[in-house]
Amino acid sequence: MELLEAIHNRRSTKKFSDKTLSDDVLEDILEAGTWAPSHGNKQPWEFIIFGEQTRKKLSEWYLDFIETGQLKNPDMSEEKKESKRNFARTYGNAPVLMAVSYLPPDREIDNYDYPLATAACIQNILLAASEQGVSGVWLSLGAHQAVREIAGVPEGGKIAGIILLGYPESTSETKGRIPAKEKIRRLP
Amino acid sequence: MELLEAIHNRRSTKKFSDKTLSDDVLEDILEAGTWAPSHGNKQPWEFIIFGEQTRKKLSEWYLDFIETGQLKNPDMSEEKKESKRNFARTYGNAPVLMAVSYLPPDREIDNYDYPLATAACIQNILLAASEQGVSGVWLSLGAHQAVREIAGVPEGGKIAGIILLGYPESTSETKGRIPAKEKIRRLP
Repeated sequence: MELLEAIHNRRSTKKFSDKTLSDDVLEDILEAGTWAPSHGNKQPWEFIIFGEQTRKKLSEWYLDFIETGQLKNPDMSEEKKESKRNFARTYGNAPVLMAVSYLPPDREIDNYDYPLATAACIQNILLAASEQGVSGVWLSLGAHQAVREIAGVPEGGKIAGIILLGYPESTSETKGRIPAKEKIRRLP
Repeated sequence: MELLEAIHNRRSTKKFSDKTLSDDVLEDILEAGTWAPSHGNKQPWEFIIFGEQTRKKLSEWYLDFIETGQLKNPDMSEEKKESKRNFARTYGNAPVLMAVSYLPPDREIDNYDYPLATAACIQNILLAASEQGVSGVWLSLGAHQAVREIAGVPEGGKIAGIILLGYPESTSETKGRIPAKEKIRRLP
């Protein structure tokens, strides 16, 4: 697949088909992740793949989290709420749910570098997935301490993304982008 | 260019040829950056391109920073020190020096999402650059408040990377990677 095609056509997927994702294909995708740059080539990322038990634990937390947060919104329809609950229970049927975490920092500057390098690693993963017809979504759940605990991230380590991967049943619509030229500011 | 070729062959460049980088080519490369995913499609990135005056200001700070930090190392040869000073003055002759920054957060979760999304944007930029024969390096200088001030980043905003871009005169050697399978941990 062409690079620019992969960059432009990557879509977030929250609904997956029944097709399983083989360990070989997953490993190929993660391998691409490891080619991200990192300061001093520290390669701080780790791939924590959740099995059934751990997915269930995360679901319990997730359901509680949305119930006490966004589902309290009185303007949200019951149908939409049920769809959110369903996603928290099933993750859209994703065959792979993983945390891409990073190691506890060795030095002060690692606190700056590690999340950024790990995010670059995730972007490689999402792009390389498309080469295999695989799609995914990058969730922010990893921001929460409870999720770090469920994932068994060592003290001081953090999660840059909870990533779902699988063969898409449907993907999100293209979301427009603000053109680069409107994001450019030139200094003297 | 093929996606996986771009991912595997991306190298950090700290020595650039005299060839200038046209605004059109730069804009194409940054456009690829804007196709990174971001939570709620907030697209928090900004591209701050340094002109001569601002590059000089950054050099002054950078020289001082390395002089009081790593150049104090008594084990570093004078030749190596001079090479570091030279880089801080010239940025390896890079025609483009920019800060990829992100906006001040609107919500608590943005503090988590914005740096990660902006790092994904930078990874797209570094990959898309290779399509044009352009190469670059991602520096951590943006971690420092003084650099945010020189770049004029608004209060609350931050820098995910100081990026040099240009046509390489020479690139770094391939740095090996720890295979993905050694980075995988499976939970029950």
